[in-house]
Amino acid sequence: MDMLLPVPRLTVLGHVRSALKDRDTAPKSGAEGAPEAWIELDAAYAPALLGLEAGQRILVVTWLHQGDRTVLQCHPRGDKNRPLRGVFATRSPDRPNPLGLHEVEILEIAAPARLRVFPLEAIDGTPVVDVKSVDRPPAEEPPAR
Amino acid sequence: MDMLLPVPRLTVLGHVRSALKDRDTAPKSGAEGAPEAWIELDAAYAPALLGLEAGQRILVVTWLHQGDRTVLQCHPRGDKNRPLRGVFATRSPDRPNPLGLHEVEILEIAAPARLRVFPLEAIDGTPVVDVKSVDRPPAEEPPAR
Repeated sequence: MDMLLPVPRLTVLGHVRSALKDRDTAPKSGAEGAPEAWIELDAAYAPALLGLEAGQRILVVTWLHQGDRTVLQCHPRGDKNRPLRGVFATRSPDRPNPLGLHEVEILEIAAPARLRVFPLEAIDGTPVVDVKSVDRPPAEEPPAR
Repeated sequence: MDMLLPVPRLTVLGHVRSALKDRDTAPKSGAEGAPEAWIELDAAYAPALLGLEAGQRILVVTWLHQGDRTVLQCHPRGDKNRPLRGVFATRSPDRPNPLGLHEVEILEIAAPARLRVFPLEAIDGTPVVDVKSVDRPPAEEPPAR
């Protein structure tokens, strides 16, 4: 019965603006020398940023539009000396739904709905599909200011 | 120019099978008493699980199909005493693209492509759209066995 549900269609909220232009030369993760970048959201989403501040960490979800959606197995990090693994056991951008997940720090927030963040390995023009607070157990939540 | 790219369509890889049937009574996060659940993927994705084992932690990405995609601000945790925040500063399931992100432990892997995981707050029937390894910096990667 679930199969009768409509196919979920993502709304593109905005795009990454980055000095990184090419997947082949981009770092494989934020921790590997990725630069800062701008997340430029459509102005319509400005209200959804209320409460975010420079210095906070957020999760940015991207649609890795150059990912190969037919790939089910790969050599981790493209290293042919490493045994094949299922893409669900990796962070490869080649996967049935090429969603990218990036934990970054907000460096600056600018009008109308732009976030300067660090570090981000996604290339220029990558669609952004979600922004979330970094999860933490309720007990660790800081008190409201 | 980016706007001319096609709208990304998610492929539903499978569904959550859980004792949780109702969003209103489900825990708001895995850490708040969520039960174990099965991730039942389509058999076609079995090759993508190669390398996953019981005991590992993974990220499960879901499509929170009951989320309200028109909501841009909310009271965190539904508590009207807390000030309104933008949904991008929260983990609310109500957001333009209702993607759920769940870090869980694999308890069991079963044929053809089923994972028993813990804890998972997503309700029964929730579409699953991605599974990823938990990110860690390269220096912390365990040696290959």
